[in-house]
Amino acid sequence: MTAIEAGVVYLVGAGPGDPGLLTVRAVELLEAADVVLHDKLPGEEILGAIPPETREDVGKRAGGEWTPQEYTNQRMVELARADNAVVRLKGGDPFVFGRGGEEMEALAAAEVPFEVVPGVSSAVAAPALAGIPLTHREHASAVTVVTGHEDPTKPATAVEWERLGRSDETLVVLMGVGKLDAYVPLLREGGRPASTPLAFIERAGWPQMRVVTTTLGEAVAVRDAESISPPAVIIIGTVVAIRAAVTQWARGMRETP
Amino acid sequence: MTAIEAGVVYLVGAGPGDPGLLTVRAVELLEAADVVLHDKLPGEEILGAIPPETREDVGKRAGGEWTPQEYTNQRMVELARADNAVVRLKGGDPFVFGRGGEEMEALAAAEVPFEVVPGVSSAVAAPALAGIPLTHREHASAVTVVTGHEDPTKPATAVEWERLGRSDETLVVLMGVGKLDAYVPLLREGGRPASTPLAFIERAGWPQMRVVTTTLGEAVAVRDAESISPPAVIIIGTVVAIRAAVTQWARGMRETP
Repeated sequence: MTAIEAGVVYLVGAGPGDPGLLTVRAVELLEAADVVLHDKLPGEEILGAIPPETREDVGKRAGGEWTPQEYTNQRMVELARADNAVVRLKGGDPFVFGRGGEEMEALAAAEVPFEVVPGVSSAVAAPALAGIPLTHREHASAVTVVTGHEDPTKPATAVEWERLGRSDETLVVLMGVGKLDAYVPLLREGGRPASTPLAFIERAGWPQMRVVTTTLGEAVAVRDAESISPPAVIIIGTVVAIRAAVTQWARGMRETP
Repeated sequence: MTAIEAGVVYLVGAGPGDPGLLTVRAVELLEAADVVLHDKLPGEEILGAIPPETREDVGKRAGGEWTPQEYTNQRMVELARADNAVVRLKGGDPFVFGRGGEEMEALAAAEVPFEVVPGVSSAVAAPALAGIPLTHREHASAVTVVTGHEDPTKPATAVEWERLGRSDETLVVLMGVGKLDAYVPLLREGGRPASTPLAFIERAGWPQMRVVTTTLGEAVAVRDAESISPPAVIIIGTVVAIRAAVTQWARGMRETP
């Protein structure tokens, strides 16, 4: 692989937040970048290791509003045209609910060369770090990843919760803590039993990682009682039950409180 | 993170095969391991960098048969009990169709401590390296990953191809080249149009990576004409069409022949 080039934008997945889960290529690019555009999702351990003079936060603004996607797109183009080697660092993987697709399209439309560096998606890392296999010969032959935080301007491609309820595949919900009240009843109506195991994995890969297991039927009450807060990954399916049998022998996995 | 301990088994994802997509933690463990148990999936670039005296192939045997899973499970336990620091290296991520779940259960049952190190799943890396975002606000709010190579002893949790055909989410099929003739008609019957874009991504992340795009209706004919062979990842959905607009500006993405 080439090292890094001026005038190029690197769309880089940072993984779930543990610096040990950065890829070799991501480390190489972060060390050599002229500018790193980021939000809060890569987490303080990874962001703190980047020289402050190369960091530029394009996440939440002072007033608490989100930076519009259009601004980030323009800033990448502007910096690359000014002959910088630009890393656009995304939490997890850039193309799994990361808007990396839109950023790639914006770069191509502006005729700015780019490279995509995949990362360890939180959808994959969170269950792994919690001792929950997403697929298992005796439990699930498919896994579906959805976001619980839908774009309200997009009715045509909304998540089909009831259809997902009719299946017994593993379901991974990203950004799904806040709207749990809305979609749990739809999964139940679709046919998922109230007894279906469910895990909340808060801050996966961060030092404060916490795992709380419950059932689909109790999920809303447990979220409130345990004050589960974002960022968290939710896993729904019988594979969740495997965790209880293995954590005693696992290193680096937090216990259920 | 601790470095490495004797008597512990590390279930490590190797990513898709490019050494640059190994995680920092995986590199650290591969350098310090007493024994690395592997098959062919991590690819020659990664396997070739491991000292031959620490490598042990638990993939195909001389006669072409697969090593039974039970043998691999026992070998991990035996090596750990003999006070080795053991890395079990898996292609992609250990828990996405990698039987890592079963291996973790076997270790816990034998009271052998283990650590899980997630990797960049080929289901995520292959489309990223081909310029195909798995999700996109204007295309897909969900992605389902399935295997096209089903365990024939497991009728109860078989892939529900017709149901997947009724959705417009992105579908990622791992190990799905050989049985394409069997499941394409089921997706069509479920309702996916013949015009649905489809991509074959052969040897993602390897120097010989190749991407061939077609449609669901033409997929079997194109597989045969282009001699698509495993390992390959298949992506089905409208997100595949994004690739054509971006590859001209992409670094490190192979062109469609």
